[in-house]
Amino acid sequence: MHFASDNRAGVHPKISTSLVNHAHGHATSYGGSDLDKKVVQKFSELFEREVSVFYCSTGTAANALAFSAYNRPGAVGFCHREAHIREDECGAPEFFASGARLRIVDGPNGKMLPENLDTQIKSVKSFGVSGGVPAFVSITQGTEAGTVHTLAELDALTEIAKNHQLPVHMDGARFANAVQAIGCTPAEMTWKRGIDALSFGATKNGCWCAEALIFFQQHDAAHMAYIHKRAAQVMSKTRFVSAQFDAYLKDELWLELAAHANSAAQGLEAIIAKSNHARLAWRREINEVFAVITKLKARDLKNKGAEFYEWPSPYADKNIVGPNETIIRLVTDFSTTQADIDNFAAALNTQMLTEL
Amino acid sequence: MHFASDNRAGVHPKISTSLVNHAHGHATSYGGSDLDKKVVQKFSELFEREVSVFYCSTGTAANALAFSAYNRPGAVGFCHREAHIREDECGAPEFFASGARLRIVDGPNGKMLPENLDTQIKSVKSFGVSGGVPAFVSITQGTEAGTVHTLAELDALTEIAKNHQLPVHMDGARFANAVQAIGCTPAEMTWKRGIDALSFGATKNGCWCAEALIFFQQHDAAHMAYIHKRAAQVMSKTRFVSAQFDAYLKDELWLELAAHANSAAQGLEAIIAKSNHARLAWRREINEVFAVITKLKARDLKNKGAEFYEWPSPYADKNIVGPNETIIRLVTDFSTTQADIDNFAAALNTQMLTEL
Amino acid sequence: MHFASDNRAGVHPKISTSLVNHAHGHATSYGGSDLDKKVVQKFSELFEREVSVFYCSTGTAANALAFSAYNRPGAVGFCHREAHIREDECGAPEFFASGARLRIVDGPNGKMLPENLDTQIKSVKSFGVSGGVPAFVSITQGTEAGTVHTLAELDALTEIAKNHQLPVHMDGARFANAVQAIGCTPAEMTWKRGIDALSFGATKNGCWCAEALIFFQQHDAAHMAYIHKRAAQVMSKTRFVSAQFDAYLKDELWLELAAHANSAAQGLEAIIAKSNHARLAWRREINEVFAVITKLKARDLKNKGAEFYEWPSPYADKNIVGPNETIIRLVTDFSTTQADIDNFAAALNTQMLTEL
Amino acid sequence: MHFASDNRAGVHPKISTSLVNHAHGHATSYGGSDLDKKVVQKFSELFEREVSVFYCSTGTAANALAFSAYNRPGAVGFCHREAHIREDECGAPEFFASGARLRIVDGPNGKMLPENLDTQIKSVKSFGVSGGVPAFVSITQGTEAGTVHTLAELDALTEIAKNHQLPVHMDGARFANAVQAIGCTPAEMTWKRGIDALSFGATKNGCWCAEALIFFQQHDAAHMAYIHKRAAQVMSKTRFVSAQFDAYLKDELWLELAAHANSAAQGLEAIIAKSNHARLAWRREINEVFAVITKLKARDLKNKGAEFYEWPSPYADKNIVGPNETIIRLVTDFSTTQADIDNFAAALNTQMLTEL
Repeated sequence: MHFASDNRAGVHPKISTSLVNHAHGHATSYGGSDLDKKVVQKFSELFEREVSVFYCSTGTAANALAFSAYNRPGAVGFCHREAHIREDECGAPEFFASGARLRIVDGPNGKMLPENLDTQIKSVKSFGVSGGVPAFVSITQGTEAGTVHTLAELDALTEIAKNHQLPVHMDGARFANAVQAIGCTPAEMTWKRGIDALSFGATKNGCWCAEALIFFQQHDAAHMAYIHKRAAQVMSKTRFVSAQFDAYLKDELWLELAAHANSAAQGLEAIIAKSNHARLAWRREINEVFAVITKLKARDLKNKGAEFYEWPSPYADKNIVGPNETIIRLVTDFSTTQADIDNFAAALNTQMLTEL
Repeated sequence: MHFASDNRAGVHPKISTSLVNHAHGHATSYGGSDLDKKVVQKFSELFEREVSVFYCSTGTAANALAFSAYNRPGAVGFCHREAHIREDECGAPEFFASGARLRIVDGPNGKMLPENLDTQIKSVKSFGVSGGVPAFVSITQGTEAGTVHTLAELDALTEIAKNHQLPVHMDGARFANAVQAIGCTPAEMTWKRGIDALSFGATKNGCWCAEALIFFQQHDAAHMAYIHKRAAQVMSKTRFVSAQFDAYLKDELWLELAAHANSAAQGLEAIIAKSNHARLAWRREINEVFAVITKLKARDLKNKGAEFYEWPSPYADKNIVGPNETIIRLVTDFSTTQADIDNFAAALNTQMLTEL
Repeated sequence: MHFASDNRAGVHPKISTSLVNHAHGHATSYGGSDLDKKVVQKFSELFEREVSVFYCSTGTAANALAFSAYNRPGAVGFCHREAHIREDECGAPEFFASGARLRIVDGPNGKMLPENLDTQIKSVKSFGVSGGVPAFVSITQGTEAGTVHTLAELDALTEIAKNHQLPVHMDGARFANAVQAIGCTPAEMTWKRGIDALSFGATKNGCWCAEALIFFQQHDAAHMAYIHKRAAQVMSKTRFVSAQFDAYLKDELWLELAAHANSAAQGLEAIIAKSNHARLAWRREINEVFAVITKLKARDLKNKGAEFYEWPSPYADKNIVGPNETIIRLVTDFSTTQADIDNFAAALNTQMLTEL
Repeated sequence: MHFASDNRAGVHPKISTSLVNHAHGHATSYGGSDLDKKVVQKFSELFEREVSVFYCSTGTAANALAFSAYNRPGAVGFCHREAHIREDECGAPEFFASGARLRIVDGPNGKMLPENLDTQIKSVKSFGVSGGVPAFVSITQGTEAGTVHTLAELDALTEIAKNHQLPVHMDGARFANAVQAIGCTPAEMTWKRGIDALSFGATKNGCWCAEALIFFQQHDAAHMAYIHKRAAQVMSKTRFVSAQFDAYLKDELWLELAAHANSAAQGLEAIIAKSNHARLAWRREINEVFAVITKLKARDLKNKGAEFYEWPSPYADKNIVGPNETIIRLVTDFSTTQADIDNFAAALNTQMLTEL
C-alpha cells in the first residue's frame, strides 16, 4: 500500500527504454545535442509558443532558480503558507536569491486568496525602502493540498500580480496532474493565464530525474545561462534528461500517467467517503487524498502495511480535526495498483489489529 | 574522431542495465532505499573506512558543496590557477559559500607547488582580519592538464595544509583515471594522504549523472544534510544515482573503463610523439593529451572531422607555443574506438585539405 | 511638535562635548585606542560580566550581525510579526545571513506569545531537513508597539528558546527606555533572563551614531571579528563611537535621557486619555504613544504642525480602529519640550482648522 | 612619530565645529534634512554634474556597494593585485555581491597595466558561461603604493573597460590626496575620464566617519536605495555625516588638508632620499612614502618611537629588497607636525639604540 509519495514510484518503461536508446555514441554535452534541441522544440510546441527551457535536477532547484531569475536587491516574493517553496526546501529559494524573502499569503485549500495577495503586496510597499520591493509571486498548481486552481482562480491571482507589475511563477511539481484534472491545454494553464515561468516537474510522474524551468517571455531568461551555471545545475550529459522528456511528451504519455494517478486517487477518495472509519478532510482534485482518521486508526493502518504521512492541519482554529484525530495524506502515482487500493479499503474498514 | 570531452560520451551498457533493473516498484526516496544504503556501504568498503556520501547532479555542485562544508566567515580557499573550481564553474563555489574566496596557487603541469601554497596561505594570514581566514585547500586529481599528482606530491601539499590546520578537498572529476594511472588504492589516493573530502566523479567515465561528495571525517559532514538540501541537490529518486554507482563499482568496472580511456590516450600520445606535424605540449598521464600544432593544422584537423578544443597556454611567458601555433586538448573516454585513433593519426599526418 | 521619530532628534551636549574632547591627536584605529578599551571595560561593568562589544553604524547592522553570529546552513530565526528585524530592514538580516529565514511569531502588544514561539519552532522541526533548523530567537525590548516585556515575560520566552537549545537576541534600539521603564539593572534585563546577545542602541537616545552589538557568552563571538569586517562595519576611527558611549554611559546619562523621553510620552498619554478627540490604542510603557483618532483629525493635526506617522493596525480583525479612524504613533525623545506637548494638547483639543 | 596610518589621526577643528553646530533641534532623518539636501547639491557642484550620493560608514562599504550596484549573475570584477578591495576587506565586496568574484590585474606601482586588464577580461570571456561575465573594473586613486594614475593612465584603463562595455569604479579612499597631487578638478579625475562610480573618502583626511559612494550616471544607481538599505548602511541621523562633508567641502578645506599631508610626505621623502640608512622603494606621489631599510633599522626606529607598518614587497622576484631588508610604509596626514618629521630624520640618521 504505497501512498507515502509519488517520488517513491519507479519509472515508466517507456522512459527507461528511451534512456537505453540514447545511451550510445557521442553527443554534444551541455544542451547542444540534436536530441536536446529536439526536446526544446517539443516544449515550444507543447506550449504553443517559443519557450526557454532550463533543466534542473530537482524541483527545488527549478523553484529556486525561478525566484533568482526575478531577483533584485530587496526583493520580496509571495506564496501560499503551505507552498513547497516556503515549507519544504530548507530555504533554498531564499539562499539562491541571496537573502530575498518570501511572504505568506493565506487562503483555503492550498490556494492564496487574491485579496490577501493584494494586501500583502501593499503591506510590503507601505514600508517603502525599509520594507523591500515586491518582485515575485509563486502559485502552486496542483497545490500541496491536492487541489487545483480553476482557470478563473489563476486569472484572479495573476491580475493582482500584474496590477503590481509582478511576474508570476507556477510551481508545477504536479503540473501534469493539474492539467489532466482541469482538461485544458498547457498553454491555457500557463501563459494564457499570465504565468511567466513554470517549474515543469516530471520526476513524480514516471521519470527518474527530469525537471525543467520554463520561461514564456524570452527576456525573463536574459541572465539565466549564468544563473543556471552558477547554481551548479548545468548537467553535462543533458541528453539523459532530454531522453526522459522525449518519451514523456511523446503521444501524451505524461497525461496518460497523470490520468492513472488521478484516477487511483479518485478510487481512494470514494473508499474514504463511504467509510465509517474516516472522512475526507477536503475535496481532492489530483493525486493526493487527505483524510481525517483517529490517531489509533492511523497507527493501525501503518501496522497493516499502509505507507502514508500524517499532515499538519492547515486549519488549527477551525476544528476540522478532533482531539484524538489526525490528517493523513495518501498519494497515488502512475504505477498505483488496484490491489493497493483494495487492500487499503480492507485495512481501513476491518477491525484494528491491536487496540493500543 | 571524438576527442572534445569525455562528457560527450554515452553510458556503458552495464550502467544502463542497472537503471532498467531498478526502475520497477516503490522505494523510499531521498536516500532511504535499500539500494541507496547498499551503495553507501560499497563506498565505505571501497575507501576502507566509514565515509559520508552526498550525491550531486554535477561535479560543480560537489566541488561547491565541499567548499561550503568548510566555509566560515571570511573564508579563503586555495587552488591551482587552472583548477575547474576556479576557472570553469561560473563562480558556483564562491556563490554557494556566500562570497568566500579562492586564491590562486601556481605551479607547473596543473599542480600547485607546495612552497607556493605555503606562501599564499601565509600572505592571507599576514593581513589579519582584513585578509580573511584560510579555510580550504582544493587539489585536482587528475589535473586539468592531464597529469596526476604522485602520492609524494599529494603528501607534500597536504602537509602544508595540515601545518596550517586546513582541510583538503580533492576534485576527482577524473578520479578513476588518476587511480588507474597511479595503480594505488582509492584509500591510498585520499585519506591516507590527508585528503578530507572528495568529489568522486563518475559521469565522465561512463555514467549518465553520478557524482558523489565524500567525507572521510564524520564530523566534517555535520551540517551537510542542510547544506545539501539548501543547495537543491537532494534528488528525490536517489536510487537512480545509486543504480549507476552500484554497477559502476561492481567488479571494478570503474577502473576498467578508466583503463580503456587512459590507454586510448596513450595511443594518441604515441602518434603525436612520432608525428612531424605536432609535438606533445607536456607529458600526459591520464585520458587527456595536449599537443602543440600550427593553427593551420588545427583548422585542417577540424575540417577532417576531428573534435577537440584549443586550450589556453598556461606558460604564455615560456614560449612553449610559437606565434602561429596553438595547444589542442584531446580527450579520450571509456568508449573511444581504435578507429577514431587511427583516423586521427591519418588526419594528422596526411596533407592538409585546403591551404587557407 | 516633533513626534515623528526619536531619530529626528539631535544629540545631547555632553555627547558633542565628548567628541570635541577626543578629536585631537593620534590614536590607534580599529578599536585599539585607550578610549576604545576603556569603553569596552565600561560595558562589562554596566552588565556586571565580561562582554564582547562590536560597534555598528546602524541598528539594522547590529541586528543583522546578531543573526549572522548564530547562522548555520538552513537556519531559521523567530521574531514578532512587527519586529523591526522583519519589517523595517529591507531584508538585511536575511541578506547578511546568506538567505537564512525569519519566521513570524504572533502575540499582542508587540510581544511574542511563548506558546506561539514554541509552536513555530516545533513546526519548523516537524519538516526535518526540508524545514531547516531553528537557530535564533529575537525579542524586541522595548517593543515596536511602545510596550515593554516584563522580566517574567522575558523568562517565559527564553525558557522556550532554551528548551530548544536556541540562542536569544534582544533588539534594544530602545533598550534605555525599557530599562528605565522597568527600573531593573541592564544585567537583570539581559543575561540574567537568558539573553545571549544585545543590540544596544544609543543613536535614538541622544547620540549621533552609536550602536553596539554585545555578546554575553564569549564563545558566541568566536567568528565575530570576521563577520564584523566582512559586513563592512569595522569603522576605522572607532574612538568617535567610543567618545559617544563614554559620555553616554557616564553618570547614568543614558538613563536620564530615557527618563526624559518616557516622561514626555507619559505627558502625551495623559492628554490623549483625557481628550474627547482621541483615545489610547493601547497602554504605553516607553517613549511611544499610540492613539486612535479620526482620519480628519489626523490631517488637522498635521496642518497644525504636528509631526507623526500613521501606523498600520496590528489588530485588523479586532475593530480597535473604526472605518474613518487611524492609529497615530507619537514618539518623544531626550529633547522633547513641554511646549511641544502643550501645543499638541491644544492642537488636539481645539477646533479643526479646516473641514476637508 | 605617527606614520602608521592616516586613520589614526583625529579630526580637523572645522569638522568638529560643524558637528556641534548641527547638534541641536529636530531634523528629518534618513537623508531628508535640509542639510542633507544641501550637501548632495554641493557634491553635484563639486563634480560639475548631477550626482547620486550614498553615505557609508566605511570605505569598505562604499567599495562593496559599488561592486553590488553593477553586480549580475556570474559577475567578475577586475582590480589591481594590491587593491584594498581585494586585499584588505575580508571579502566584503564578494560577500555583498553574493559571491561575485574579483580577478587580479597586475602592474607596477599599484597600477593595473591596460594590456593586462584587456587580457584578463578576454580570458574570462574565453570560458563562456563557465567563466562568468566581466562586469566591473575598480581603479584605486591614489593607489595603495602611494602613487597616482595620471589622467592619461586613467584614460587608457577606462578605454579598455569601455571597449568591453564595463563600468569603472574608482576607490578614492585618498581621492583628495590624488586630486591635490595631480592638480586637476574632481570632474577631470572622474567622469571626464570615464569613471562611473567613486568611493569618495574623507575619513582619512580629517573627518570622523564620512564616506560617500557617488554615481555619475543616474541609471547606475537605480537599485541603490535597496542595496544601501539591505547593506545596513542607511544611517538614521544622516545630518551627522552631512555636517562633516559640509565643512569638509567648504572653501576647499578638503584640498587644504590633503596638501598638508602630501607636503609632509614630501618632507619625509626628501629625508629618506638623502639618508645613508634608507632608500626610497619607489617614487611617492601622495601621502605615503615607501622606504627600504634593514630589518635591524626598522626595529631601531620602532624602539625610538616611530610608528609605521612593514609592507609586503610587490616585486618579490625583482630584488628591490635585500635579504636583511624590509619595506616600511610611512603615512602622513592633515595633522602631521614638522616635529614628527624632524624626529624621524633624527631617529633614522643617528646611531641605533641597541644592536639586537
